[in-house]
Amino acid sequence: MTKSEVKIIIGNIIHCPQKLKIELLENGFVVVQGKQITAIGDSATFQHQLTLLQAQGNQIETIHLKQSQILIPGFVDTHIHAPQYPNAGLGYDKTLLDWLNCYTFNLERRYRDLNLAENVFDAVVKKTINHGTTTACYFACLFTEASIVLVDSVIKYGQRALVGKVNMTKSSCRDYVETEEESLENTIKFIDNVVSRNNPLVQPIITPRFALSADIEHMTELGYIAKNNNLSIQTHISENLDEVRLVKEEFGLSYANVYDKSNLLTDKTVLAHGIYLSDEELRLIAAKGSSISHCPESNTCLKSGLCDVKRLLEFGVKVGLGTDVSGGPSPSICKAMRSALDTSVCLSFSKENYEPLIYTDVFYLATLGGAEALNLDDKVGNFTVGKEFDALIVDMNVENPQIDCFLECTPMEILQKFVYCGDDRNVVSVFVAGKNVK
Amino acid sequence: MTKSEVKIIIGNIIHCPQKLKIELLENGFVVVQGKQITAIGDSATFQHQLTLLQAQGNQIETIHLKQSQILIPGFVDTHIHAPQYPNAGLGYDKTLLDWLNCYTFNLERRYRDLNLAENVFDAVVKKTINHGTTTACYFACLFTEASIVLVDSVIKYGQRALVGKVNMTKSSCRDYVETEEESLENTIKFIDNVVSRNNPLVQPIITPRFALSADIEHMTELGYIAKNNNLSIQTHISENLDEVRLVKEEFGLSYANVYDKSNLLTDKTVLAHGIYLSDEELRLIAAKGSSISHCPESNTCLKSGLCDVKRLLEFGVKVGLGTDVSGGPSPSICKAMRSALDTSVCLSFSKENYEPLIYTDVFYLATLGGAEALNLDDKVGNFTVGKEFDALIVDMNVENPQIDCFLECTPMEILQKFVYCGDDRNVVSVFVAGKNVK
Ligand SMILES: [Zn+2]
Ligand SMILES: [Zn+2]
Repeated sequence: MTKSEVKIIIGNIIHCPQKLKIELLENGFVVVQGKQITAIGDSATFQHQLTLLQAQGNQIETIHLKQSQILIPGFVDTHIHAPQYPNAGLGYDKTLLDWLNCYTFNLERRYRDLNLAENVFDAVVKKTINHGTTTACYFACLFTEASIVLVDSVIKYGQRALVGKVNMTKSSCRDYVETEEESLENTIKFIDNVVSRNNPLVQPIITPRFALSADIEHMTELGYIAKNNNLSIQTHISENLDEVRLVKEEFGLSYANVYDKSNLLTDKTVLAHGIYLSDEELRLIAAKGSSISHCPESNTCLKSGLCDVKRLLEFGVKVGLGTDVSGGPSPSICKAMRSALDTSVCLSFSKENYEPLIYTDVFYLATLGGAEALNLDDKVGNFTVGKEFDALIVDMNVENPQIDCFLECTPMEILQKFVYCGDDRNVVSVFVAGKNVK
Repeated sequence: MTKSEVKIIIGNIIHCPQKLKIELLENGFVVVQGKQITAIGDSATFQHQLTLLQAQGNQIETIHLKQSQILIPGFVDTHIHAPQYPNAGLGYDKTLLDWLNCYTFNLERRYRDLNLAENVFDAVVKKTINHGTTTACYFACLFTEASIVLVDSVIKYGQRALVGKVNMTKSSCRDYVETEEESLENTIKFIDNVVSRNNPLVQPIITPRFALSADIEHMTELGYIAKNNNLSIQTHISENLDEVRLVKEEFGLSYANVYDKSNLLTDKTVLAHGIYLSDEELRLIAAKGSSISHCPESNTCLKSGLCDVKRLLEFGVKVGLGTDVSGGPSPSICKAMRSALDTSVCLSFSKENYEPLIYTDVFYLATLGGAEALNLDDKVGNFTVGKEFDALIVDMNVENPQIDCFLECTPMEILQKFVYCGDDRNVVSVFVAGKNVK
């Protein structure tokens, strides 16, 4: 190890070492050198580590957590539409297809205005960081320039992100659609721009909107671009029954098969929603290594349906959480955890012997699950030596909270309270790649 | 009208003039003299009113709402357990009966400690006011002294409230139970104390915990106390399937019939939950003029079930919203509105042609519906001349909100955004009986 600035965070640490497993390090520590985690341990090994680091002549900053605080991995939002942020909380009188036409396209087409783009994208990045989102997988919009503004915002505030210029060659809105040539050309232009920024935290992602907004030939070309540039892919799948029926009518194939035929199902593909996937589709998705972004708030607000996450996991599909702003009204993954619990409880009412998810399960989905879904689990998702330090300090005893905390809580109770009653005010510090961004 | 201090609030005003009806007064006004609403109108009649009030020589304070603000009636929480506040967010691994034993009774029995009582009750009253609850219907605990401390807190912070010393002569917890003599004697003592305070905002309410915590003879005596003192009654009903089965086994009657036989079903009775009531029970409850406190967050967190509010309303039963802290994790009626929407959407997934509640419906439940449920709709619930002024100024453009507001929103969109994305930070002013308490 070379001499460097070293942070040691000391206190109660909770993370998921692996799928659906939770670990509490009581009075533990994490050592961060630059952006990387270089050691993690419990109180028994702390003094040894400290002596070692001091002997190397490192400048050491120690952060002692309070008893009301826990250190947890940063949240991963696997599905969020940045330009729809102003519509959050509006339009839930509609269901998906009408909502897209009435609310979404009408707003998104306004991002020809780059001032609007800068205002909204700065705000959405700042706000999601404030809620604890250290990694976000963004849908931008059709316009290359505005999509680049979103990249600017992400870089400015230090979030880790995948950003996609949206592709849509078929649309009900004649003012918000592109030709196939424009779609491909602007996608390349966008990728080149992001790559040229040379920022290790931000990557472009190939983003066909959904099966109804392109034909298989065009989607296949987008699949090639992803393959040739080793890029991730994001799109929507099986969100709404009308949508699923239209896809079947138009392509004569199941939804997952449409994407597979288009070479869009890779081990770096994240599919939003996935409520109505058949067993056969789930086997296909699992075999391809693609993942599902579970968006419970959106699924309820737009009356899309209840997605059974336990079934997805049983099929071996990777699953993370998505806010799906503005299908979902909240930019908070903490709320998404809460909503995932609610959805699971509601499913249990109609299923025999169905054990709903518990708070530690949704904590997995919000952290390591999200990292796996975005194929970033080699870099983030938990506190493993060698990974980058994306983390939150959560405090259930802040000033003017949404709820007071009285009893002496154990670290696991602090996490439980945060999942059920917490909000951005309880996220007191946010770190991305070792850097304090809140 | 006599000379007095007069407040005029001018701006966009939204309330429910009657059941499930919503009214927007764009650029309207409300005149408040002392604690009462003395006029309400739209911009066309404003100048006439102003001239009239000035001619009477009144001291007039005008409050001009901003475009991002709306004036709405104060929220009514029809069911909340003050002593359980420290447990909010904990224990949702259990269902009702186990949860009562493991978490609730164990906490409530600690209120022999009046310091704990003062700390917690001050906090819960301040916090619910902060979230916009102008009227709360509280369960205190078994202990008279602690229950009086809750009355102190309510009076100190100026909330409108019904407060009940809880009655429980049968309990699984031998350290948290009372004899029938203690129950009756302490109830009378408690009522006398509250009445002696002579505070028009606070009333005692008869509070048998639930059918399993007393026998019919004892409940009947409590019913007499209510009748003789013209008091309201609150208890729980039909929350959980195991509970319903036990009640049936023990009494050989339906849940509603147990209470009816105990003379507890009056037109001033509010029953919490009511998930599994039969048609016959609902007809009985409606005929008696009793009401249901719908507690959607609690029903989901404790996996009790989905309560069909539309069915209750169709049977002519009065319905309000309850947080049911700590069965529910949040002290906010705004969250209860959101959760009532989610519950209704979930019900719609399993019912043919079921139109779920929309945001204006839950706004009714949170305001006028709650006032009706507590039999206080002659005093509060909406902006009617002669009623007392319990109101909130909601602002969706505050500093450091949970979500940003961009587009120019109509007043109805502001309400919609508040229901779906708002929290206590958006409740910028709270009035109870004309007095600004936040
Ligand atoms: Zn989406
Ligand atoms: Zn209750």
